[in-house]
Amino acid sequence: MAAALALSERGRGRTAPNPNVGCIIVSGGSVVGRGWTQPGGRPHAEAMALAEAGDAARGATAYVTLEPCAHQSPRGPACADLLAASGVATVHVALGDPDPRTNGKGIARLRAAGVAVHDGLLAAEAARLMGGFLMRQRSGRPLVTLKLATSLDGQIAMADGRSRWITGAAARAHTHLERARHEMILVGRGTYDADAPRLDVRLAGLEARSPRRALLTRGVAPEGWEAVAAPGAIGALAGVDHLFVEGGAQTAAAFLAADRVDRLLLYRAPILIGRGRAALGDIGLADLAEAHGCWRLCDTRLLGSDRMEVYERVRI
Amino acid sequence: MAAALALSERGRGRTAPNPNVGCIIVSGGSVVGRGWTQPGGRPHAEAMALAEAGDAARGATAYVTLEPCAHQSPRGPACADLLAASGVATVHVALGDPDPRTNGKGIARLRAAGVAVHDGLLAAEAARLMGGFLMRQRSGRPLVTLKLATSLDGQIAMADGRSRWITGAAARAHTHLERARHEMILVGRGTYDADAPRLDVRLAGLEARSPRRALLTRGVAPEGWEAVAAPGAIGALAGVDHLFVEGGAQTAAAFLAADRVDRLLLYRAPILIGRGRAALGDIGLADLAEAHGCWRLCDTRLLGSDRMEVYERVRI
Repeated sequence: MAAALALSERGRGRTAPNPNVGCIIVSGGSVVGRGWTQPGGRPHAEAMALAEAGDAARGATAYVTLEPCAHQSPRGPACADLLAASGVATVHVALGDPDPRTNGKGIARLRAAGVAVHDGLLAAEAARLMGGFLMRQRSGRPLVTLKLATSLDGQIAMADGRSRWITGAAARAHTHLERARHEMILVGRGTYDADAPRLDVRLAGLEARSPRRALLTRGVAPEGWEAVAAPGAIGALAGVDHLFVEGGAQTAAAFLAADRVDRLLLYRAPILIGRGRAALGDIGLADLAEAHGCWRLCDTRLLGSDRMEVYERVRI
Repeated sequence: MAAALALSERGRGRTAPNPNVGCIIVSGGSVVGRGWTQPGGRPHAEAMALAEAGDAARGATAYVTLEPCAHQSPRGPACADLLAASGVATVHVALGDPDPRTNGKGIARLRAAGVAVHDGLLAAEAARLMGGFLMRQRSGRPLVTLKLATSLDGQIAMADGRSRWITGAAARAHTHLERARHEMILVGRGTYDADAPRLDVRLAGLEARSPRRALLTRGVAPEGWEAVAAPGAIGALAGVDHLFVEGGAQTAAAFLAADRVDRLLLYRAPILIGRGRAALGDIGLADLAEAHGCWRLCDTRLLGSDRMEVYERVRI
């Protein structure tokens, strides 16, 4: 299942409105088929893996990160039917599909066809990797990641706005990799005017994965950009299950104040700036006590001499 | 030697102007003597360990964190002479003593008496643990630790000054432990006026180790406090080899601007504050490039849900 999850990662940010699923088919101790949801959402991971496996799927075990779909579409048959027809003997599913067209029906259909189905394997990891799809299903909006690159004292620039460079090359390259995992990047007017950012993916081999660009504005977006009027309006962004908010302080604060941040991606350089520009504007905090318990560290890593930390929003 | 270093830790912040040395005497695979510099600087670690070992020191091996002193004083004989007279066969020394009255003479005297001497074992760790003494010897001033307790976005309080609590109980207890390792704590006028801080050590068993209190002011200190006019004046503080700067932002910035901070002790709570009070005032940074390469992470630990980090000033 860990291998299937690694495959699902490949589709992150490219499969909306479909989930980024991964699938591995194992027979006699060997992997005979591998698949992941393709850009735009089709083919599905299971169809791709079964096509590779061919006859080897008979009697094999399939590992799928999400419950196979139970609904036929003009673009292809239901994956539960494909799996049943392939002759696989066992299917491991990490997570049930909340899509009402499937939601248990995929597993039921497999079992009805005589396939042994086990679920729950690495469910938490699967929920993290397919978080954009799940957030869209549950809350009707994309999963929002807020990126902040700061000094040890929480500054994102010097007082006059200079911010090149706070973090090092490895951290900046990692930001580009994160961009490639999002359908859309958003900045505020201040960042747009000051930096005229390209916001593209400048990593060899991933240039084609540069996301759509959005500006937080009540006005009209410049050419090549889309306008987002407010954090509360992100549900209307078609084809966006992962939104990457890159700055600046007022835009970040607006998303936090609206409780529209699900993931904090922090890069911290081992430097001190002193009187500069703070990472965040007013987030509407009334009391220190209410600030606690909102964020849980879920990943941390050194990138050169910078520390990366990922915090997830805790919602009870 | 690691055990001797652990003993040296016991004296940190209590032995100035003497170094906080640790000493272990091993004979036939057993520890027969343990010593550490006592409060006020006497007895020395070696004298204490030899007193415990008694006749068992004959033919034994001694581990000392600093080169044994070569100078007699009215308060006791030179440790190099004591060790030689005790009959120890071998002495391991972590670090040479830069005090001109010893500086190689302690080791020479041991060798002249027929004792085998090895030096350099765990020297870097020893330099860290006896950093206050070494800074005083090298630069004529105490080692300065700056403590900052911030949110993830680098704020030390809400906009109206409320700061209870940003960090949790474990981090706050750790701060009290750090206080006990310093001869003096210093705050600025703003912190004094706003918090009227006690700055004592509120840890069971360590209450008696509350350090002297200083106020950064050009005026007169209140009763029970000492006045320090400027960061550049700390060399004149008699009996202070470790100075703990606890706030606030202007005081911290003044010490950083004067390059009088050797150790950054950061506590970071997993919360966001937004528009609040920044950790630092103006530190006089002219360019981002010059901010890099100044700080090296040397320790990190989770305290409850807060992360503690210790950075050391890199001086080339």
